[in-house]
Amino acid sequence: MTAADVRKLARAENLTTTSGYAAGFMQANLLAVPQEFAFDFLLFAQRNPKSCPIVGVLEAGEYSSPLLPEGDIRTDIPSYRIFEDGELVDTVTDATGYWSEDMVAFLIGCSFTFETALVENGIKLEHIEQGRNVAMYRTSTPTVPAGMFSGPQVVSMRPIPAERVADAVRITSRYPSVHGAPVHVGNPEAIGITDLSAPDFGEPVEIPEGHIPVFWACGVTPQAVVMNSRPRLAITHEPGKMLVTDARDLEYQVP
Amino acid sequence: MTAADVRKLARAENLTTTSGYAAGFMQANLLAVPQEFAFDFLLFAQRNPKSCPIVGVLEAGEYSSPLLPEGDIRTDIPSYRIFEDGELVDTVTDATGYWSEDMVAFLIGCSFTFETALVENGIKLEHIEQGRNVAMYRTSTPTVPAGMFSGPQVVSMRPIPAERVADAVRITSRYPSVHGAPVHVGNPEAIGITDLSAPDFGEPVEIPEGHIPVFWACGVTPQAVVMNSRPRLAITHEPGKMLVTDARDLEYQVP
Repeated sequence: MTAADVRKLARAENLTTTSGYAAGFMQANLLAVPQEFAFDFLLFAQRNPKSCPIVGVLEAGEYSSPLLPEGDIRTDIPSYRIFEDGELVDTVTDATGYWSEDMVAFLIGCSFTFETALVENGIKLEHIEQGRNVAMYRTSTPTVPAGMFSGPQVVSMRPIPAERVADAVRITSRYPSVHGAPVHVGNPEAIGITDLSAPDFGEPVEIPEGHIPVFWACGVTPQAVVMNSRPRLAITHEPGKMLVTDARDLEYQVP
Repeated sequence: MTAADVRKLARAENLTTTSGYAAGFMQANLLAVPQEFAFDFLLFAQRNPKSCPIVGVLEAGEYSSPLLPEGDIRTDIPSYRIFEDGELVDTVTDATGYWSEDMVAFLIGCSFTFETALVENGIKLEHIEQGRNVAMYRTSTPTVPAGMFSGPQVVSMRPIPAERVADAVRITSRYPSVHGAPVHVGNPEAIGITDLSAPDFGEPVEIPEGHIPVFWACGVTPQAVVMNSRPRLAITHEPGKMLVTDARDLEYQVP
């Protein structure tokens, strides 16, 4: 399946997840806000590049871009979340009804890209092994505010065998456009996580003997920031149901 | 000398260049525009990360930031250029008279950072050897437009010994926040450069026998874009006279 095939499929039906579709193509998080908030959010992303690595922006009135040629950002994601004044008010498979001409859409890099690289380097991912969604936590670490946007950093946690932690750091640091190197290794209390078995998003993942919990900045951060900052309207993807783009994961690798 | 010392010195006098001052500290290009143009320029930078790698943004009304603690962006650069409607109308050592409360200042990574890394890896830089400014050229390669901003990509050229070209690529690719890997190697005609001895900015640099001209995206691109796009006001540094920041070059190295 090509990326365009998956977008066409996502337009027609609500896939459970886009994980595993169109291998090698970059998947992206969505945050769309009215133009009046666009500078503040783009600046927020610039100041928080690990949480919000921007891989593309569709200006007001644009529905496609070289990342989704002949696509439509309002329909080509399996499912969307609608936030009004920071509250989740609806979940829809077609966001056209909530879209207006002044919406600016930000596409944000997704950890699926570096997960592929980890697996290809022989590092097993426990949430996949255990058949679960990744575990995500609101931390006590604030993001760097910009204009009207502020809020806590959200992290994803992956248990890594102690002898592969250095490799996991090295491999993910080669993908600065998709969250990059971990923000924290091995001490959840230090970032305000008191109970690893009770994640704020996703599902709990067991930490096997000899594994260390490793924390990466997470693309759900913009949703936590929207809940905190309460713009009058924000449209996001539903976690795990991403935009599949025409860009290749490897384009985002350095050096 | 610390970075703060150099900023204090730059406030008092018009240094010929900041090159060589406060070794190890990151120097930055400046582009400041009124708030009405700020989203378009930040988006332009996001779409042209090799030409315009943003390392910091001072919002309207801000004069200092963690990159220049207790500094003043209006005075701490040795010399400023003032553009009105795309025309260079003045050069001043203190930009306070042209600044207004709605100016947003973008700090853009500078190739001095990767030049240090090249020299430390034993690659001689001919413009330094020849005692000249680097040679810069307007190319036939367009930048990716954003809103009101568009124009040609400007590149800097450094002659590199053929046997070190691969090393130069490898080393500079580790600095994506300061222009990163070259945009072109060895064929100036292909990017519209017909005469290497007649650069558009800086000074001509001779290419010794056995050296290949290698081209990097250049921080002068925003000035060429301002000349092309003609915002009513833009304030930049004078080339070679940079803002010396408190950030360390090594913070910008991956992985």
